[in-house]
Amino acid sequence: MSRTTQGAPAAAAPHPGGPGDAPGPGEARAAFRAGSTSPTSGWAPGYTQVNLISVPRDWAYDVLLFCQRNPRPCPVLDVTDPGGTSTVLAPDADLRTDLPAYRVWEDGELAAEPGEVTDRWRDDLVTFLIGCSFTFEWALADAGVPLRHLEQERNVSMYVTDRQCRPAGQMHGPMVVSMRPVPEELLGTAARVTGRMPAVHGAPVHSGDPARIGIADLGAPDFGDAVDLLPGDVPVFWACGVTPQAAVMASRPPFAITHAPGRMFVTDVRDEQYLVA
Amino acid sequence: MSRTTQGAPAAAAPHPGGPGDAPGPGEARAAFRAGSTSPTSGWAPGYTQVNLISVPRDWAYDVLLFCQRNPRPCPVLDVTDPGGTSTVLAPDADLRTDLPAYRVWEDGELAAEPGEVTDRWRDDLVTFLIGCSFTFEWALADAGVPLRHLEQERNVSMYVTDRQCRPAGQMHGPMVVSMRPVPEELLGTAARVTGRMPAVHGAPVHSGDPARIGIADLGAPDFGDAVDLLPGDVPVFWACGVTPQAAVMASRPPFAITHAPGRMFVTDVRDEQYLVA
Repeated sequence: MSRTTQGAPAAAAPHPGGPGDAPGPGEARAAFRAGSTSPTSGWAPGYTQVNLISVPRDWAYDVLLFCQRNPRPCPVLDVTDPGGTSTVLAPDADLRTDLPAYRVWEDGELAAEPGEVTDRWRDDLVTFLIGCSFTFEWALADAGVPLRHLEQERNVSMYVTDRQCRPAGQMHGPMVVSMRPVPEELLGTAARVTGRMPAVHGAPVHSGDPARIGIADLGAPDFGDAVDLLPGDVPVFWACGVTPQAAVMASRPPFAITHAPGRMFVTDVRDEQYLVA
Repeated sequence: MSRTTQGAPAAAAPHPGGPGDAPGPGEARAAFRAGSTSPTSGWAPGYTQVNLISVPRDWAYDVLLFCQRNPRPCPVLDVTDPGGTSTVLAPDADLRTDLPAYRVWEDGELAAEPGEVTDRWRDDLVTFLIGCSFTFEWALADAGVPLRHLEQERNVSMYVTDRQCRPAGQMHGPMVVSMRPVPEELLGTAARVTGRMPAVHGAPVHSGDPARIGIADLGAPDFGDAVDLLPGDVPVFWACGVTPQAAVMASRPPFAITHAPGRMFVTDVRDEQYLVA
């Protein structure tokens, strides 16, 4: 099946979660199953998107414990049984086909980036679905915080930091962060709004000087696109669900499948479900 | 070492978290290490108490996944490496000696209830520390919600319900709940205050008629003490960290160690750390 970038009706929607005629989560997954490789930011507004990582059963405990020990970057929202291809987060979906693009890893090296992974699936694969900061973007927008990456029709910027996660067995690696430019007068608002959603990364882990967390050049993200700061904007960094992917690269399990950065799994769960208080 | 109930200076403190000359967490653990078997409610006010369950490494994945799939009763706050006897929640403590009383389980049957487990420890034991509703009692008290079990100098009431947890591998079992009588006009306050602390069970799972969740007789709790309702009080039920213990009974791992109900591990972490927003 060939993949194209056509059929991305809401990729640049400026206010995720707002009203409109954007497709729902089932329609989004059908489009990805049919071949779209579009980034998922702005798709199915109001519905939670998640990171995916599948590892063989004999690595599953270390991955689950790694996530437990690093809940800011790795909030686990569901785990399948070995070989399982569905999730309670979207019971009708097939985890092997319904994402825009996947990454296949062998010994920690990127081996392929296919549009589906049916042929590569294994009966011993355990799949982890991990919260994504896209989930709190509607809350930021509702609070008046502009979303520069959507204004600029780009994927969010993601960076590998110099902060090491707490290791678990064979799993170790650095924390990855997403960055959003926030007008300085809205820093408190952004922290307060996202702090109420700990299941999807919660409050920022850092604001301001990128060098303080080992980021040399904001213009050269490790994943996603560079996003321009406007005058008065401060870079704000949230723990990112790509962190397990960085741990796969560092820890080198013999086999793993992940989503491609920015190409998430769209669930049937409303974003508000992850709001506390 | 013999265990007595002496040395429980703050067991009936009416306002956990309030000021006073109550002992800190290190003093509490020293008292338990020295022989006190007192229930821990009211000890070291302001510091988080946690449930403990230790299982052999080959059961650890199922326990961790069971907790992930049932976060209301089983919020995991730390997991040790195999054989580990310390935790980041209280680095100076020894998990084998510093609780008032333990339960030792063989094939799901209670085999002993000793005051320490040094002699029974195994190099393959993985220990899970799980959030406890004692943590939100200070917040209830601060909001003006009376704590009847402390007023009556009793352990909190705990009941096995007819609600089954989502199973994980070999781990399965019913949800256990704690019950607190709440004056009817404060039901909303109690739900709001505890809903902000999802890491320690969060909002109630049920209020009112106990039969609706399979509890036949409030006067006969499965764990802890019966607590009297005052006129106008409604029984309010929160998911309880004794749930993994009920799962041990149902799932029958060959070996397990838990805390004795109401005799928790007292950590160095302030209760406020688990408050969201």
